[in-house]
Amino acid sequence: MSRFFSKKYSTLVPYTPGEQPKDVKYIKLNTNESPYPPSKGVIEAVSKEGGWLQLYSDPECSLLHKELSSLYKVEKSQVLATNGSDEILNFAFMAFSDKENPIVFPDITYGFYPVFAEINNIPYEKIPLKDDFSIDVNDYIGINKNIVIANPNAPTGMYLELCEIEKIVKSNPNNVIIIDEAYIDFGGESAIPLTQKYDNLIVTRTFSKSYSMAGARLGFGVANEALIADMNTIKYSTNPYNVNRMSQIAGVFAIRENDYYMSNCAKIIEARKYATKELEGLGFKVLPSCANFVFAKSESIGGEELYLELKSRGILIRHFTSERIKDFNRITIGTKEQMEFLIKEIKSILEEKR
Amino acid sequence: MSRFFSKKYSTLVPYTPGEQPKDVKYIKLNTNESPYPPSKGVIEAVSKEGGWLQLYSDPECSLLHKELSSLYKVEKSQVLATNGSDEILNFAFMAFSDKENPIVFPDITYGFYPVFAEINNIPYEKIPLKDDFSIDVNDYIGINKNIVIANPNAPTGMYLELCEIEKIVKSNPNNVIIIDEAYIDFGGESAIPLTQKYDNLIVTRTFSKSYSMAGARLGFGVANEALIADMNTIKYSTNPYNVNRMSQIAGVFAIRENDYYMSNCAKIIEARKYATKELEGLGFKVLPSCANFVFAKSESIGGEELYLELKSRGILIRHFTSERIKDFNRITIGTKEQMEFLIKEIKSILEEKR
Repeated sequence: MSRFFSKKYSTLVPYTPGEQPKDVKYIKLNTNESPYPPSKGVIEAVSKEGGWLQLYSDPECSLLHKELSSLYKVEKSQVLATNGSDEILNFAFMAFSDKENPIVFPDITYGFYPVFAEINNIPYEKIPLKDDFSIDVNDYIGINKNIVIANPNAPTGMYLELCEIEKIVKSNPNNVIIIDEAYIDFGGESAIPLTQKYDNLIVTRTFSKSYSMAGARLGFGVANEALIADMNTIKYSTNPYNVNRMSQIAGVFAIRENDYYMSNCAKIIEARKYATKELEGLGFKVLPSCANFVFAKSESIGGEELYLELKSRGILIRHFTSERIKDFNRITIGTKEQMEFLIKEIKSILEEKR
Repeated sequence: MSRFFSKKYSTLVPYTPGEQPKDVKYIKLNTNESPYPPSKGVIEAVSKEGGWLQLYSDPECSLLHKELSSLYKVEKSQVLATNGSDEILNFAFMAFSDKENPIVFPDITYGFYPVFAEINNIPYEKIPLKDDFSIDVNDYIGINKNIVIANPNAPTGMYLELCEIEKIVKSNPNNVIIIDEAYIDFGGESAIPLTQKYDNLIVTRTFSKSYSMAGARLGFGVANEALIADMNTIKYSTNPYNVNRMSQIAGVFAIRENDYYMSNCAKIIEARKYATKELEGLGFKVLPSCANFVFAKSESIGGEELYLELKSRGILIRHFTSERIKDFNRITIGTKEQMEFLIKEIKSILEEKR
């Protein structure tokens, strides 16, 4: 820390991203990337865009907002594209929570939420998940506080039915509810239609997972027009040209080729079923997942040990150090072939341990 | 404004970016873009990267930081790439200024500085430029406040000699001095070498102007290692994957093909000389510019009128509404041919007014 660093950040602990090895020899099952490349239209559009980089990107993201609004059947004024969904989440924290308006979220969830709260000086509270790692909806009914919930949740993968989400939104009419749907395309029902009915709901999404575009940094939010206008005030006061030309056009073509991505999601759901069954066959406890990962724990091997053993065999998975989940690993669902290789290696690790 | 918007932002007035017309029929001399496309290596690299977007970008921007550090002869730990230079400026405002540490800047300069101050709740003070629109260095000597100066300044284009910058940095050893060098490649001497000598200096740069990459959103800062570490704390607490894959690799190849960009800068400097002489011949007062634009005022036509007349003839330039500069226009320097066309049209406008 330099002698100039503002005292207000002196205790700030930044988010730690998953390992991003510089060499490419690992099978990466650690950061929930898609195993499939972007669609042809996306690759072609990006390729053409390289020749136009001397011109600024459209700060209003008009084409992209048009495609998003038409896909999700909302108005253009209800959509805001950002530099990854971390940015729309940060905008939502900044705009609607403050010292007088605290925010709550589950104790086990996306590790960035407490960081967004800390950096924006927002009081926050963690509500413990139930013993089975599910969210107890009653904990969030009529609590009169802002709320952020990842649905499906990470790193558990567990999904909350849409009617339960609606109960939370409806029972806290004077608070902003953020539903982070980074993983919704892998088996859940989106809360986006509820944004037409409730003025206190923000749904955030990302192109990083189901749309094979983690490297393009493209996310967006859908909400009531007035909430979007407020988040635009934040955007135009920090970084008006927040989404570059290449990512904007990539997003446009991804939506136009939606079928390709949805069929990839279907394949990933199949591979998840396969992996879940095999892991359970090997004695793992696997939480029911609606995401492109599973959260699993073995009786025979610890979370860190499995992570290290697999790493030495060329497979990266994610393990966590916090007490409640340290024996679990989060394993990204790749292709069926990658899952077969993973299972083969885990079998061999477990056999060696006998 | 929604009923949920945090009161702390209730008086925030966002930055207004320059016009970005959706059609491409205008000759755009209004946002200081380069008239030249990116170099071949950049276009090729971007094109290849489209096929790898399913993988996250490197949050450490290792390759790009390596190229930057080698070009500017600093350590890798002294460089931080961002989503445009607006992001590194915002990081610098956030990290080092606060209620107890106000910031000062000229009254006429980049219009985003007061917005960064407002959104981060930082007290600020505007120091008037001299009557000739130059910066009076004495106004900044030993003032014991954080300072941000664009050098060359915008929208004036006027340049402060490096020895003057050093006086300011040296005389305020307990404050952070930000030198925004967005336009330095068009004729100035960079303060980057001073970052090796002073621990209170941040130099910010952009690929948007001299590197033909406004649409890639790529900026960076160079400073003492401890200042960069603090700004990294901000980055990893807001958006760790802030620079996408395509922009990272575009930056890498741009630096490798530095000669192309520097020869473009030389052409723009020539076109600026031509445009300045011609405008002066038409009775304009043209401030001495070291940037890729000129700031000019005619005795015969007002700033808004000239802007509107040129727009109706297919040329966009920038005019401003604030009292002190409302009769001036900022005109981006394009190719020699574009400048010839501009001068021809201005001649015709002035003749019609007679």
